[in-house]
Amino acid sequence: MMPSKPLVLSLGDPAGVGPELIVASWFARDVHSLAPFCALGGARLLAAAAKKRGLDVPVVQVSSLEEVAAVFPRALPVFGAIDGDYAPAQPCKAGAQLALDSLTQATALAISGDASALVTGPIAKSLLAEVGFAFPGQTEFVADACGVEAQDAVMMLAGPSLRTVPLTVHVALSAVPSLVTQDLITRRARIVARALQRDYGLAHPRLAIAALNPHAGEDGRFGDEDQRIVAPAIATLRAEGIDATGPHPADGLFAPRGRATFDAALCMYHDQALVPIKALDFDQGVNVTLGLPIIRTSPDHGTAFGIAGQAKAEVGATVAAIRMAAQCARRREKAA
Amino acid sequence: MMPSKPLVLSLGDPAGVGPELIVASWFARDVHSLAPFCALGGARLLAAAAKKRGLDVPVVQVSSLEEVAAVFPRALPVFGAIDGDYAPAQPCKAGAQLALDSLTQATALAISGDASALVTGPIAKSLLAEVGFAFPGQTEFVADACGVEAQDAVMMLAGPSLRTVPLTVHVALSAVPSLVTQDLITRRARIVARALQRDYGLAHPRLAIAALNPHAGEDGRFGDEDQRIVAPAIATLRAEGIDATGPHPADGLFAPRGRATFDAALCMYHDQALVPIKALDFDQGVNVTLGLPIIRTSPDHGTAFGIAGQAKAEVGATVAAIRMAAQCARRREKAA
Repeated sequence: MMPSKPLVLSLGDPAGVGPELIVASWFARDVHSLAPFCALGGARLLAAAAKKRGLDVPVVQVSSLEEVAAVFPRALPVFGAIDGDYAPAQPCKAGAQLALDSLTQATALAISGDASALVTGPIAKSLLAEVGFAFPGQTEFVADACGVEAQDAVMMLAGPSLRTVPLTVHVALSAVPSLVTQDLITRRARIVARALQRDYGLAHPRLAIAALNPHAGEDGRFGDEDQRIVAPAIATLRAEGIDATGPHPADGLFAPRGRATFDAALCMYHDQALVPIKALDFDQGVNVTLGLPIIRTSPDHGTAFGIAGQAKAEVGATVAAIRMAAQCARRREKAA
Repeated sequence: MMPSKPLVLSLGDPAGVGPELIVASWFARDVHSLAPFCALGGARLLAAAAKKRGLDVPVVQVSSLEEVAAVFPRALPVFGAIDGDYAPAQPCKAGAQLALDSLTQATALAISGDASALVTGPIAKSLLAEVGFAFPGQTEFVADACGVEAQDAVMMLAGPSLRTVPLTVHVALSAVPSLVTQDLITRRARIVARALQRDYGLAHPRLAIAALNPHAGEDGRFGDEDQRIVAPAIATLRAEGIDATGPHPADGLFAPRGRATFDAALCMYHDQALVPIKALDFDQGVNVTLGLPIIRTSPDHGTAFGIAGQAKAEVGATVAAIRMAAQCARRREKAA
């Protein structure tokens, strides 16, 4: 029931909660039936993070990913020599550089196939920019490393209650209506549908497309985008055999009866996608990148510098990201 | 623990779920410890609705609201002679006229003080317009009857998990940024703060103001409204002694830890307010009108013509609306 190769976890910013959540996930490996994983670098740093969190976590350096499965039951395997001092809540350039190196090398292991999937730890974008990171976030970095256009690497938030895909993300609300185009909706919906088939075992995924306007604009009474842009895009998708429905007024869509009608909801903007999943699935939300040749997940939270090193950070989202990555990897293996 | 005078319930559209939810609420009066209420009209119609829903609900016509308390334990009291035939799922003009008459007369009883509060049933706005109803909804109708400007009658959605106030409602998303002004935020926030003190027993209500843009625009990187409009409005409110905080990124605000930090969240647009409450509190959401001389609540759902008369409509929101109206009425009496 496990993928045949280990997962690789990037450290995230060493001043954030990333390292302690790696050791806490390993500590909880049995109760959550986690597939074998290794951390990319940080052997000394992770041992210090474990001690600070009060967890007994032996750390073992491995020289090949093939050693991970044998080591994993008794120790946290670490691959790669990069390392640093553990200084929680004290972000610095050297830490950002370590986070970037860990991300870069971990991504390469997933692309080469030595690792079955990549789980990335939380980074601080502004600090990474100072060490030359030229991407808006890890999603775009990983897409670029995979040779995939950024717009075809689709972010999905997945939790126990629902899956949502924001079609626009870090843009002003006033910019959203003009950014939502038929092409954006259809292009992303196709990627989501394929990924739900391939990685989530859903033979006929049901995609709900959220309306831009409240009540979907009530026949154009307040806003015509749902009639003019969203509805034709849905018609195009349906003509291709994709089970897309909508435009659905967002308030009903995320109510319990609404949630039962879809496998993933495509949302027009950041808060439309993030509000329901954080309201319902906080501490268990996984950020998945669809449309890549590799599997990549991430806990859906930030570095949380403010609570790093205090044993307060919840491990649920990291455990969920590891579990989801392993499940997707296994499905791809079975299908191959 | 009950208000000294009964509540009055308007019928709502007789082809919708309003009548059956009135009889179902009366049927559940003991388990939910409901304060005495009467329906405004519809004695024959309500008896038919009870029969159709399979409930044994005696209906008794009262000639004065002073009789309600004595009748309530053994029968559903009905005040007023207006009535109609029960034809669920078959909306018509005569039904809309009955709904309007019931609303008009029930509102008058709350204004005169004969009733301690008004609970309105769901209506169909488009049908009401055909019989001369010139308001966008019942909230504006009730405000007008009370002599309150429509913009000072503030809609709040309240459920077990949270309370939200949409500052803009039935407008296109593209219109929202220009409609959100400092004056709108401060004017509505003052009304909400006063109402939470007077009707909800919160001596120092905590108001969270949601950001318009994702991440509150990240220092203007995507949208400057949160810095330029929302933040100064919050500063104004705080200078007046109102405990207003924000602008808060909406996704974190409605996560469990965020929800613990406020008594009501003021939201910039419809879906920002409605998505979290329907996701968390569906079937228990109450629509309250703040800023009126009377107390008015309503279940937060529509006529649901599609399921009327099939005993499928959930009674939870109507029960919650009745309970909240009674609680608010009692608090006003105690304070008077």
